[in-house]
Amino acid sequence: MQELFTEGKTLILACDQGFEHGPEDFNLQNIDTQYIFDLAIEGKYNAVALQAGLAKHYYKGDNRRVPLIVKLNGKTKFDNDDPVSYQHTSVEYAVQLGASAVGYTIYLGSSHEQVMFKEFAKICEEAHKYGILAVCWMYPRGPAIKDDLDTDVLAYAARIASELGADIVKLKFNGDVSAMKWVVKCAGKTKVVFAGGSKVSPSKFLGVVEQMHESGACGLAVGRNVWQSDQPLKITAAIREVFGLKHNL
Amino acid sequence: MQELFTEGKTLILACDQGFEHGPEDFNLQNIDTQYIFDLAIEGKYNAVALQAGLAKHYYKGDNRRVPLIVKLNGKTKFDNDDPVSYQHTSVEYAVQLGASAVGYTIYLGSSHEQVMFKEFAKICEEAHKYGILAVCWMYPRGPAIKDDLDTDVLAYAARIASELGADIVKLKFNGDVSAMKWVVKCAGKTKVVFAGGSKVSPSKFLGVVEQMHESGACGLAVGRNVWQSDQPLKITAAIREVFGLKHNL
Amino acid sequence: MQELFTEGKTLILACDQGFEHGPEDFNLQNIDTQYIFDLAIEGKYNAVALQAGLAKHYYKGDNRRVPLIVKLNGKTKFDNDDPVSYQHTSVEYAVQLGASAVGYTIYLGSSHEQVMFKEFAKICEEAHKYGILAVCWMYPRGPAIKDDLDTDVLAYAARIASELGADIVKLKFNGDVSAMKWVVKCAGKTKVVFAGGSKVSPSKFLGVVEQMHESGACGLAVGRNVWQSDQPLKITAAIREVFGLKHNL
Amino acid sequence: MQELFTEGKTLILACDQGFEHGPEDFNLQNIDTQYIFDLAIEGKYNAVALQAGLAKHYYKGDNRRVPLIVKLNGKTKFDNDDPVSYQHTSVEYAVQLGASAVGYTIYLGSSHEQVMFKEFAKICEEAHKYGILAVCWMYPRGPAIKDDLDTDVLAYAARIASELGADIVKLKFNGDVSAMKWVVKCAGKTKVVFAGGSKVSPSKFLGVVEQMHESGACGLAVGRNVWQSDQPLKITAAIREVFGLKHNL
Amino acid sequence: MQELFTEGKTLILACDQGFEHGPEDFNLQNIDTQYIFDLAIEGKYNAVALQAGLAKHYYKGDNRRVPLIVKLNGKTKFDNDDPVSYQHTSVEYAVQLGASAVGYTIYLGSSHEQVMFKEFAKICEEAHKYGILAVCWMYPRGPAIKDDLDTDVLAYAARIASELGADIVKLKFNGDVSAMKWVVKCAGKTKVVFAGGSKVSPSKFLGVVEQMHESGACGLAVGRNVWQSDQPLKITAAIREVFGLKHNL
Repeated sequence: MQELFTEGKTLILACDQGFEHGPEDFNLQNIDTQYIFDLAIEGKYNAVALQAGLAKHYYKGDNRRVPLIVKLNGKTKFDNDDPVSYQHTSVEYAVQLGASAVGYTIYLGSSHEQVMFKEFAKICEEAHKYGILAVCWMYPRGPAIKDDLDTDVLAYAARIASELGADIVKLKFNGDVSAMKWVVKCAGKTKVVFAGGSKVSPSKFLGVVEQMHESGACGLAVGRNVWQSDQPLKITAAIREVFGLKHNL
Repeated sequence: MQELFTEGKTLILACDQGFEHGPEDFNLQNIDTQYIFDLAIEGKYNAVALQAGLAKHYYKGDNRRVPLIVKLNGKTKFDNDDPVSYQHTSVEYAVQLGASAVGYTIYLGSSHEQVMFKEFAKICEEAHKYGILAVCWMYPRGPAIKDDLDTDVLAYAARIASELGADIVKLKFNGDVSAMKWVVKCAGKTKVVFAGGSKVSPSKFLGVVEQMHESGACGLAVGRNVWQSDQPLKITAAIREVFGLKHNL
Repeated sequence: MQELFTEGKTLILACDQGFEHGPEDFNLQNIDTQYIFDLAIEGKYNAVALQAGLAKHYYKGDNRRVPLIVKLNGKTKFDNDDPVSYQHTSVEYAVQLGASAVGYTIYLGSSHEQVMFKEFAKICEEAHKYGILAVCWMYPRGPAIKDDLDTDVLAYAARIASELGADIVKLKFNGDVSAMKWVVKCAGKTKVVFAGGSKVSPSKFLGVVEQMHESGACGLAVGRNVWQSDQPLKITAAIREVFGLKHNL
Repeated sequence: MQELFTEGKTLILACDQGFEHGPEDFNLQNIDTQYIFDLAIEGKYNAVALQAGLAKHYYKGDNRRVPLIVKLNGKTKFDNDDPVSYQHTSVEYAVQLGASAVGYTIYLGSSHEQVMFKEFAKICEEAHKYGILAVCWMYPRGPAIKDDLDTDVLAYAARIASELGADIVKLKFNGDVSAMKWVVKCAGKTKVVFAGGSKVSPSKFLGVVEQMHESGACGLAVGRNVWQSDQPLKITAAIREVFGLKHNL
Repeated sequence: MQELFTEGKTLILACDQGFEHGPEDFNLQNIDTQYIFDLAIEGKYNAVALQAGLAKHYYKGDNRRVPLIVKLNGKTKFDNDDPVSYQHTSVEYAVQLGASAVGYTIYLGSSHEQVMFKEFAKICEEAHKYGILAVCWMYPRGPAIKDDLDTDVLAYAARIASELGADIVKLKFNGDVSAMKWVVKCAGKTKVVFAGGSKVSPSKFLGVVEQMHESGACGLAVGRNVWQSDQPLKITAAIREVFGLKHNL
């Protein structure tokens, strides 16, 4: 099995977009979750991040060669003004499905943030007990957030994830490398991965990946820039190179 | 006992309309749940779908020849603008009643959808544990849904059911075969059955059933077009023929 | 001990009005719960229906000769526009108090009906486990109900009680015998008892009781027309006669 | 140890005013909970009523000579229009602290009354199990209550407490002895204690105590008229005399 | 290990500001939680107060020489008008992390105060069971509070904490020594520590510390006036001197 960290770095292939955005992100090839697993294994990703239902149907046989992160909550595109997303999958079930880590999204700044703090802190306790990792998808959003890419907001997000007990926090990247170094510092011993975001040109994407690496991130959680690409392994190789990881893809 | 799938197909005789719509759907013959069981057995249906109370009173003796799907939630006709329906029957009790599968309705697009995601995901975990199947009645409805037959909406519905862990998802059919093929694709390894809907002429109904089959559905969940018909076994035979199943009814 | 059904019929002496309406229904004689038990035993009622607190204080010694129905929820007269009533007594405690059945009120058409469906379905599961009966006080009320005596509304109420697992449903009677026969039919294998309602003249009351019997009810749950009467045993004898039960009161 | 009832009577020294009203009720002497215990023991009270935190710190050693009633909920003076007060202390913990009884306040007529009915009924079940008593502080208050001293309101309050299972109900006294006799009747086997209320002149207070006794109360729950008095044992002796209890204070 | 009280006094180094205010309180030095521990150990503090996530990552090895207080709830700066903060960390988990005490914030006067009373009372029960202390961060705030430094408000806050079972209550100091003596009296056997608050000049801060000591506090919970200082051990020595504690820092 590949491991969740390679020389302290982690590249996560995320496929929770079907829940968050709907199937409009997909085509006839990548709508098939097996295709995502094939890419993850060939691209030597450190993990695939999925909802429990997909894990139940696909995390079997050879697909077990890539570690699994089970997302424990999820939200549709229908609710964005003051979002909340409840835990719907237990840590125990994620462990039964074979997960090496669990993921959970917090909408910092939502009027419901207290509910999500409570759920995530409990998830960290339980993950700790089972000996797996807790990953926080930390997205500032809601009435209290004017700009979700503001450095102070991102620094606050990183700190909260750390104080709640996240092992890894996934954050958006705002393009200001020195500012993001502070954000990474605010995460303390919680490791930071940046979100790949929506698809852009490979050259633009790789430029951002270089900045992410320079900011001190331990990796990234990428989805659309890989599995929407017609050269997913080539872009994967380039990402690995930025993070100083071996590749012969 | 007949089985939940015959050559990969499933025909479900649904009788949850008394809860959802009221007894106005019934007459002196089909108000009797025994009549529904008689049809299901003679018509070689793969399952009868009922609320727990009816199962408790009728799922005995010969009626056990047809597999049982217990609906775990239900809503009256009184609340439709922003619907929610809570789980009122436990998976454990459904198993005690003899269920081969449990059903649960999610109103995608309701402002309460998070509550239903949470309940259904837990139901899938439990059904998994008991070795029975979880069926999602997935109905887009509520403030976020302009058209519940829109292809993108149906595709999203199929994907969410799959990501939450449904073994079977029941969807409405919008009449566009190529669009519905995409919807079926979006359900991944979750099998799709289409809803029979309200009663129409036999010829019209069978025309739609042919389109459903062509779209890749593994079957349908039919109620009123069968038990409101004066020739229920004849129409059942016709449905079976469309899905390539044996019949000498 | 007298039994909950005599030749398939049941006459329940209800005394939950102190909770629902306040002590204004009572006088110095019938405010004493012992008086209610005396009437129940002398009148050979099949059950007394009470809240747990009264059962705790009075269901002892000779009073145990009449079976007990413990009401598990209750509502004051202060809230009627969009009513809800939560379960406040457990089935387990009712069993400890000696109950042969538990009762629960559902306000069908209330915006809170889902909460009550959930509680009552669970109560049916538990009652089933303890081997006692579940009785549904089914009262259509709230924003969705224009006329709580409308036949369609009463038929819907009967069907919902049956689908949720009630063994007995208590309904109001609307005076239209043929309509009420349909309502009784809609209850399926759930037995119907009609509510006695507020006090009217003995002759008027007995006229209604005859119609109730003709409609197919298995009995009635009567309170004020008996214990507010100055001839409670005489009216009880008359009711028993209508239902074809022996009496020498 | 003194007992909770002496010849069927009970005098409770209440000290929950610090929670309900704030320390403005206290001076440098009576702010000390030890002073309250000293009075209770010297005055031969049947119980002291306190919150769990004070019991934890003071219900030790000689203070154990007076029985303890632990209040399980409490409300500040900040919320009065439509009050609710949740149970914050478990019956189990009260028992560990040495309680002979538990107390709980219900705001009858509040829009939250259902929540309090549910909590109190459960408390009665648990107190029953542990073999201790349940005392209901029953205060009509909220949008549905025009006059909390109205006889019908007080009678309703007494009856609800009884139907929920209270062993003792604490009520306000409205000054009309014959009306209050009806209220006491409505409590059935639940014993009635009246609230001492805010401080008035000793002669006025003792006049009211005589009326309370005449109304059929089994005692009173008094606080400020005793521990705000500069002759607390003298007034205690007078109260005892009214209730026919021995005293040489 | 240093102890939670030294000669009846306690000095707590608080570092929960990253959660409550965001990282804007920190610089490149004190953003590192190890720096906080270094100060606590060198400054002979009686405890460090942290969220569970930071405790999980830093409460190891030599850092265990200072006792730990785990904060069980926390709130961001985004919600202040009518604040609520739910318990997100269990007492059990705090114990596993090595805590000698748990902390919890109550916003007295918030419309959600009942929720926090309930959670904190339960925390006191559990802390009692595990043999650790319960510390109440008691902050009057919300619609009912006009002035959170008003003496009556602070006295009420102290009393509520005591009635709920706090071993220690942390309060703000309003500068009026004789008033604050009454506040300390109202806390009864619950010990009072005052909040250090935001950074002021060392001389001004030490003047306030002298007043706090004079008011009868058993110590203080200080953060920014120490770890934002460029002479944190010098100011710590001065605080210790005020409280009559040894120091050779």
